[in-house]
Amino acid sequence: MVDATSAGLTPADKAALTSGASFWRTEAAVGLPAVTLTDGPHGVRMQPGSADHLGLGQSAPATCFPPAAGLAQSWDHRMVERVGAALGDEARALGVGVLLGPGINIKRDPRCGRNFEYYSEDPLVSGVLGAAWVRGVQGRGVGASVKHFAANNAEHDRMRSDSRVEARPLHEIYLQGFRRVIAESHPWTVMCSYNKINGVYASENRWLLTDLLRTRWGFTGVVVSDWGAVSDRVRALAAGLDLAMPGGDSGLDAEVVTAVEDGRLDPAAVDASAARVLGLLARAARAPHPAPVDLDAHHRLAREAAARCIVLLKNSGDTLPLRRDAALAVLGPFAAHPRFQGGGSSHVNASRVDIALDEIRSRSSGDVTYGAGYGSAADQERLLEEARAAARAADAVVLFLGLSDRDESEGYDREHIDLPAEQLDLLRAVTEAQPCTIVVLAHGGVVRLAEVDRLAAAVLDGALLGQGGGAALADVLFGVVNPSGRLAETVPVRLEDAPSFLNFPGEHSRVVYGEGLFVGYRGYDARGTAVTYPFGHGLSYTTFEYGDAAVVTDGEDLAVTVAVTNTGPRAGREVVQVYVAKADSAVLRAPQALVAFEVVDLPRGATEPVTLRVPRSDLAYWDDRVGDWVVEGGVYTLRVGRSSRDIRSCTSIEVPGDAVHLPLTANSTITEVLADPEAGPRLMSMFAETMPAGADVAGLGMDVFAMVASIPLNRLTAFVGRDASAALEQILGRPESTID
Amino acid sequence: MVDATSAGLTPADKAALTSGASFWRTEAAVGLPAVTLTDGPHGVRMQPGSADHLGLGQSAPATCFPPAAGLAQSWDHRMVERVGAALGDEARALGVGVLLGPGINIKRDPRCGRNFEYYSEDPLVSGVLGAAWVRGVQGRGVGASVKHFAANNAEHDRMRSDSRVEARPLHEIYLQGFRRVIAESHPWTVMCSYNKINGVYASENRWLLTDLLRTRWGFTGVVVSDWGAVSDRVRALAAGLDLAMPGGDSGLDAEVVTAVEDGRLDPAAVDASAARVLGLLARAARAPHPAPVDLDAHHRLAREAAARCIVLLKNSGDTLPLRRDAALAVLGPFAAHPRFQGGGSSHVNASRVDIALDEIRSRSSGDVTYGAGYGSAADQERLLEEARAAARAADAVVLFLGLSDRDESEGYDREHIDLPAEQLDLLRAVTEAQPCTIVVLAHGGVVRLAEVDRLAAAVLDGALLGQGGGAALADVLFGVVNPSGRLAETVPVRLEDAPSFLNFPGEHSRVVYGEGLFVGYRGYDARGTAVTYPFGHGLSYTTFEYGDAAVVTDGEDLAVTVAVTNTGPRAGREVVQVYVAKADSAVLRAPQALVAFEVVDLPRGATEPVTLRVPRSDLAYWDDRVGDWVVEGGVYTLRVGRSSRDIRSCTSIEVPGDAVHLPLTANSTITEVLADPEAGPRLMSMFAETMPAGADVAGLGMDVFAMVASIPLNRLTAFVGRDASAALEQILGRPESTID
Repeated sequence: MVDATSAGLTPADKAALTSGASFWRTEAAVGLPAVTLTDGPHGVRMQPGSADHLGLGQSAPATCFPPAAGLAQSWDHRMVERVGAALGDEARALGVGVLLGPGINIKRDPRCGRNFEYYSEDPLVSGVLGAAWVRGVQGRGVGASVKHFAANNAEHDRMRSDSRVEARPLHEIYLQGFRRVIAESHPWTVMCSYNKINGVYASENRWLLTDLLRTRWGFTGVVVSDWGAVSDRVRALAAGLDLAMPGGDSGLDAEVVTAVEDGRLDPAAVDASAARVLGLLARAARAPHPAPVDLDAHHRLAREAAARCIVLLKNSGDTLPLRRDAALAVLGPFAAHPRFQGGGSSHVNASRVDIALDEIRSRSSGDVTYGAGYGSAADQERLLEEARAAARAADAVVLFLGLSDRDESEGYDREHIDLPAEQLDLLRAVTEAQPCTIVVLAHGGVVRLAEVDRLAAAVLDGALLGQGGGAALADVLFGVVNPSGRLAETVPVRLEDAPSFLNFPGEHSRVVYGEGLFVGYRGYDARGTAVTYPFGHGLSYTTFEYGDAAVVTDGEDLAVTVAVTNTGPRAGREVVQVYVAKADSAVLRAPQALVAFEVVDLPRGATEPVTLRVPRSDLAYWDDRVGDWVVEGGVYTLRVGRSSRDIRSCTSIEVPGDAVHLPLTANSTITEVLADPEAGPRLMSMFAETMPAGADVAGLGMDVFAMVASIPLNRLTAFVGRDASAALEQILGRPESTID
Repeated sequence: MVDATSAGLTPADKAALTSGASFWRTEAAVGLPAVTLTDGPHGVRMQPGSADHLGLGQSAPATCFPPAAGLAQSWDHRMVERVGAALGDEARALGVGVLLGPGINIKRDPRCGRNFEYYSEDPLVSGVLGAAWVRGVQGRGVGASVKHFAANNAEHDRMRSDSRVEARPLHEIYLQGFRRVIAESHPWTVMCSYNKINGVYASENRWLLTDLLRTRWGFTGVVVSDWGAVSDRVRALAAGLDLAMPGGDSGLDAEVVTAVEDGRLDPAAVDASAARVLGLLARAARAPHPAPVDLDAHHRLAREAAARCIVLLKNSGDTLPLRRDAALAVLGPFAAHPRFQGGGSSHVNASRVDIALDEIRSRSSGDVTYGAGYGSAADQERLLEEARAAARAADAVVLFLGLSDRDESEGYDREHIDLPAEQLDLLRAVTEAQPCTIVVLAHGGVVRLAEVDRLAAAVLDGALLGQGGGAALADVLFGVVNPSGRLAETVPVRLEDAPSFLNFPGEHSRVVYGEGLFVGYRGYDARGTAVTYPFGHGLSYTTFEYGDAAVVTDGEDLAVTVAVTNTGPRAGREVVQVYVAKADSAVLRAPQALVAFEVVDLPRGATEPVTLRVPRSDLAYWDDRVGDWVVEGGVYTLRVGRSSRDIRSCTSIEVPGDAVHLPLTANSTITEVLADPEAGPRLMSMFAETMPAGADVAGLGMDVFAMVASIPLNRLTAFVGRDASAALEQILGRPESTID
């Protein structure tokens, strides 16, 4: 790392380095050019003229790959890495040194307006795919910025809101993806979020940015603020925030200098941050010269990726794939004017856009009609009638439904998850006229699909597919591509079923993560709630059978093996999922949690043994008593299947546990003391001596042991009537002065 | 109040006064006799010999009135006050100065082992009935001890567990009942609970015991600890705890003296607590001499009360009341060996006990057979077969089901809410043999009743009825009493539906009240969850019709009037309930909340106008921004009906709001600034000047205002590229130095 002091920088130079020189650029220093950072993550949003972080101003043309909500549905880290590499190439060609992504926040609630920029409700999917994205981008000499660190799971009041999260969900759910990305892919930068975490702004949170991120996780890169996330430069530097963005306010740099002079800020903090920023400049300067970008090739990749992101949610009989010569009524404005990305800072000026209607027509040999079906209140009845007529006249309907840019965006959350009423009217009208209706969905956040599922013969869910989505959808509709996408987020029957429902988005700048660990499928499973489509769900045009799963130890880790056979009529891709469960756990757990997944391509009739590695450390829970990860000893069940609710085979293995030493104290309960090999018998004998005279315990029919089990030693003495300190000493076997 | 110093007490005397002299007694002082405190609340548990707080040792015979879980089902404060008066008489006759009750903790989760000692999931029911109990007891010269203060809603790890509750649910749900009891009935003492509240033991919680209880609420009595709840006498005294129980450890009193000498404890704290204890001694000394207690009269009252507590949950056709000459098969051991109270410190040595089977026989002119139906694993098949045969031979079955002493108790929580499997087997067998089966339930905590509801022709729920329950049940079965009880707690379809399900009982001595405000019906309603029997539910042998409700202002308060007509075949008692709802509230609210209820007796055919008063202050929410109660202005809907889900008439009224002044700061958002008449226009003009050049806002189709609405002023400057402090000054209209 460059030493800021030895580089001959003045205090003012160093302070200046810790904020941007302008909206999108760092300072240049010691002969190193400034670094440009721009919005991502699914395309490069390079603004040559205007500068804003809201997706408002114009940016240079770039390939719009599937946004994270779509991309995650591939469950395919290799595909994500290829997309990342293409993004890295485009960024470098545009002179961008750091591309601001991936966004890996957990989709805590379906209403979060920015869910389209995030991968999953599950930290493993988020972490594995986020790490792949970083590998792809950084492999091309461009830095990534994993964001938004951390516990930023709503847009409502996002610049003030305090995320109140308990230690276990914080570590096991909300931080876990970041930990994985940092450990596996070493992103150049981490972007801190706007919100507070348990009372402290992320940008000023020393526990988060230093104790956890650097000391525990070993992160050595730059912590950059989200644009406008720093409210106090001095506190931010002291906490470990290196680069406050955007820049351009030299008055704030001067405040930093003054704070050092006043002794309010340790100069070492400025030195360290300036050095890290210099390190970033040096890294960016080492990037190879940009090669010309082949936008056509990237468009082909965008199509390929999009096709892999499409989830076949439902397929009655053999509704799909469509015959080429089928007479089709294509309905819904999104067929002609696709919704393929989200609003806000990630908004890409797409180099070109495939139109599903055109792509369907180009692949069809039958009659293809088009109607909007809705769109203008005045013409609503006419549009509906035309749609009905077209539906009746066709062999099948392909009905495009979804959310518009206005329905969801960065910056605000939804208040419901329903499809717009006029779309549901259209759905009802069309399915009544034509039972063979295929619904194609476009949306950033989850929408309620109970009625779609009931009325449609088949459902394709693209979430947001980027600029190649139109072609990809046509390929899947006609079976050019056999769909293999899987849901990375549960589709609940009703919004009210969401585990976070009662605690979103909070009020008065405060949101309690009241569902704790039970986010997404963990919550639906824990309550046994029926869902419309479960986490991990996705059908195929072929079928798969699973053999018996087996698990063996592989060093410290586990290796789960299962044979998967393509038993259907055509080649296909399967996403094998492994969930872990632990019966009789001593700590709170979700009924199951994803611990491994793997994509496997299988020709027709082929069988392949799939081996999925589960690191022992991934079985750990965060023990808030010792402040560390702990693997509980005992039998773990590995549940292998096609989705979280389509488990095909289970296998179990005993795993040795980590020793957790919790010394007995005066505050230890009877249960805890009795479990101790030395103190236990001493307590038993004291207990036998002091049962209340005349107690007709058996006659009362009560579970007396259960009644007293939770009494701590230092209170028990109140009940048995002994001198407290003497009794404690007798039980714990050491003098009172040593007892906590 | 007696002045401890002027009374000539030494520091040691005063310290001694702040703890008990023995297990059940205070010290005597300045010529005032010691006060005996004993367990309640539904009977006097006076232990003449042994001393324990677990219900183990023998106590003097006393009337066992319905425990709170049963008593609450009367919804009848007059009845509760009469029971309280009888309890006061019995206490005084036994030389008891303070009876430890009422327990008014909220039934947050059905599994809490001590729910049988508490009234309701609703703070109004808990507060109104708790206040009535205190009036009754104290009207006889005996002190009450409202408990367990506060947020003590589980037995698991109760002596260490930290209840993590946000400000709004804490004030609006968990403290509200205490506030009401203290304001309305001035209990002599308040008992602090074992648990911690937001990190601080109740016994050491100065905010709770002093700032809130004394300063805000004006409580002037004694705060007594639950037995063994004090872990640090010095901290407890400093917090405002007056009397640590049990007593008997003079070493701890000496510690107090030393702490004062060392300057670690303000002597004024000891003086104040000693003075309050002296005040309690003086109050008790003023009690009139005890009159002899007429235990027969009290038993009759126990029967009358029990009859009023029985809820008719279901009554297909005219299953109930039974004809006197019906041939009955009475099944289930509880018919002969009643479960009528709970286990633990409240366990009463009942003066006599009515047996339902005997009482049924005494009222019947038909053939009454009895069979246990279950009870011994070895004979299970035979018992079932006998039950089937008896059921077939009878005109109707009266089937007693419920929980045993071992299934639930103080000291531990349940892990499920199912009836025992052998009872469900019996239910299935019997209802198959005899469709006309009446189930009679005995239980402290809620049990799952989905299957009972499906299979039984009628269901009577007594919860726990005390020693007169057997006669009361027989009276209701034969129609001597027309049932009028109402559920004070929702019966969910499944435990997993409970709002607190994912957060009970917590782990590692910590429980997050993650459901926030949405406790009980507030949560079921908010999620729109189907329930087996809703809060407030209860049928009658007659029928009631409601006229149109009307609401008028009565001074500051509201008066809701509705005409209720008994349209059925016999006299009956109706419990009219008023729930409040506020559409478009600016703060989070339950869909409805109980704000008034009234019992009305109506002869056959009679109509009576019922007026229910709703104090304006009861419409307030706790505003955590200003730390006070605030009535939001606007239209409130009063929903009048028979239960929370049987609303018969709604009416609305506009209520003026309280002014809440939240001054604009640098941290105010655009939305907040725009709402300000002065700063709003200034911001608008700045905003118009600084929109990014070339922003094609309309073309993007996004809701740009929604995107920026939540940006605080001090961050907005990062986006509009202005000098921060100048921009702030311009918008807020005052120099930066005055801006927070």
